[in-house]
Amino acid sequence: MTIDPGSLLGRTISSITPTDSKALAAAEDRQCQLTKPPGSLGLLEVIGCQLSAICGQVPPPVPTHPVLAVFAGDHGVYEQNITCWPQEVTVQMLINMCYGGASINALAPETGTQIWPVDIGLANGVPDAPGLRRLRVRSGTADFTQTSAMTREEAQRAIEVGIALADQAVAGGADVLLTGEVGLGNTTSASALIAAMTGTDPQLTTGRGAGSDDVMLQRKVDVVRRGIALHDPDPSDPLGVLAALGGLELAGMAGFMLGGAAHRVPVILDGVLSCSAALVATGLQPDLIGYLFAGHLGDEPGIKVALEALGLPALCDLELRLGEGSGALMALPIIRGAARVLRDMATFADAGVSGKVDE
Amino acid sequence: MTIDPGSLLGRTISSITPTDSKALAAAEDRQCQLTKPPGSLGLLEVIGCQLSAICGQVPPPVPTHPVLAVFAGDHGVYEQNITCWPQEVTVQMLINMCYGGASINALAPETGTQIWPVDIGLANGVPDAPGLRRLRVRSGTADFTQTSAMTREEAQRAIEVGIALADQAVAGGADVLLTGEVGLGNTTSASALIAAMTGTDPQLTTGRGAGSDDVMLQRKVDVVRRGIALHDPDPSDPLGVLAALGGLELAGMAGFMLGGAAHRVPVILDGVLSCSAALVATGLQPDLIGYLFAGHLGDEPGIKVALEALGLPALCDLELRLGEGSGALMALPIIRGAARVLRDMATFADAGVSGKVDE
Repeated sequence: MTIDPGSLLGRTISSITPTDSKALAAAEDRQCQLTKPPGSLGLLEVIGCQLSAICGQVPPPVPTHPVLAVFAGDHGVYEQNITCWPQEVTVQMLINMCYGGASINALAPETGTQIWPVDIGLANGVPDAPGLRRLRVRSGTADFTQTSAMTREEAQRAIEVGIALADQAVAGGADVLLTGEVGLGNTTSASALIAAMTGTDPQLTTGRGAGSDDVMLQRKVDVVRRGIALHDPDPSDPLGVLAALGGLELAGMAGFMLGGAAHRVPVILDGVLSCSAALVATGLQPDLIGYLFAGHLGDEPGIKVALEALGLPALCDLELRLGEGSGALMALPIIRGAARVLRDMATFADAGVSGKVDE
Repeated sequence: MTIDPGSLLGRTISSITPTDSKALAAAEDRQCQLTKPPGSLGLLEVIGCQLSAICGQVPPPVPTHPVLAVFAGDHGVYEQNITCWPQEVTVQMLINMCYGGASINALAPETGTQIWPVDIGLANGVPDAPGLRRLRVRSGTADFTQTSAMTREEAQRAIEVGIALADQAVAGGADVLLTGEVGLGNTTSASALIAAMTGTDPQLTTGRGAGSDDVMLQRKVDVVRRGIALHDPDPSDPLGVLAALGGLELAGMAGFMLGGAAHRVPVILDGVLSCSAALVATGLQPDLIGYLFAGHLGDEPGIKVALEALGLPALCDLELRLGEGSGALMALPIIRGAARVLRDMATFADAGVSGKVDE
């Protein structure tokens, strides 16, 4: 794998450093001084410590300016009849988001999250709509059962769209980034990426997406098998895997993650799509992993495979299978709560609370 | 079981009605019209429909005035050496909450939740502190391995303290109630209540609480077995079970739930303590169940047993084992999100989004 070190992607990969192990240790120490049995806040303690490691401070700041980038792309593999929704829905849902009617528009005000809808690779024309970012790299991918979904150059450019958006978000004050997507047929690409990057059988990484029945599910599995057989993807070359299997919105999310980590900003993953993108992104830069939080478990089997490979616990499980960033949004209050605990709880000494009795 | 129908408890039980099945059906219908694959928002859809059934409206209002009542009580069974923390911690933690230093004080601002700390049955004197409500029914329970934890009259009075607080909260504008508690040794009482109300072996309902080791855990199980052997509690007489096994704060939470339901206000359970109280409260009034949400799963084994008996799914699982109401607080943004989805998402017709293709 060769990535030009002078390119935006190359420079971003170089600028990501491991999270701060001293701040992590200091945060773990503080957790034991707070007025609770040590460990009794479970994942909230783990998350708080990771936030400290990300920013290098104890306590970490409570994120107050979240940005959710929603990358929209179409998939050539749609032609293989792997979804029961018409492809025009990708455009319609992106427009629906711009006008405030999608699930994430309903959920985002709970946390004051900004939504950035991005055309990174729709197949068809997109009408004007408020807030729409037109950053199309190509008009949909090619069918990966026939040829590469895109070229390596296109894959890199799509990643760099995501990096540039993260740069822009952080420059505008964002202190936590959330990943989202829309793209008819994209769970098929995600299943293929997860199978390829983890060496897992496609039967275990492929799910029903937005409502496939048994016949369609089996067709999806076969399509993923054919794609992997055709391209024989090499997980040590994540850019090559991404170019072979798609998609543009998955590349955009991978870039958004890398861009966030380069600024030492935490990134919350959504469902199976962003988990597949995280496998590519951490393949490109393993130190990225310390900056990622898995928003939710969801209903797609590929998520479990991906999160196990990433070593990330899912922060919630509401049986969501919608995407868009809905699961990432549900995890945000948990992450904020974890930061608040480290910042605002009294210590045993402060509060005059007695400690555990030694037996 | 005889409960005076003219008492506050009797009147409250009578005033609770089943949730509204017509509103439930209308909410389920609306979920299918919103711009998402039907069912794709998983538990968020289920919660939204339940909120509609509770208030009788579609969409349901988004709760904006949450009140978390924290009932503090001590346990005579503390004498059986079933916790590694000194009993004075109950008072210290209640005071810590009044002064803003506890976990729930750190977490509550995320959702603007008011915290009401209540002395419903501490064993010792409590100094003055801001916001403390002195509503003590008796100074700690008796040791249930020796005698009844309290009398039936005391159990009823403690439930009525909770009902009166729910009345007061709703009169002050509360539109969602959260249950919390503090009480050294209270997971032992909760384990006993869950075992008694569900007919489950105490080994399966008893956990480590705030940090018991293997020896202490086995002692807790034995203590629960002895209590159940002594009192032979009858689950068809929930007030009798509660009086026999305690505790005062569990009674208060049961009353708070009943009071919320009487006003058609949703109630969010916390961990194993409030789950045990919910078994008592739904035993007194089975229609209560439609008003309850299980905030989290937590680490105590008794929660699973109780939630299975109640038929409630846990909304999150952050491996919390702190109590106080911390798990209920973490669930609140999920419940709000569910209400926002029903209120704010566009329909397919509104947004001009195409539906699923029939095959």
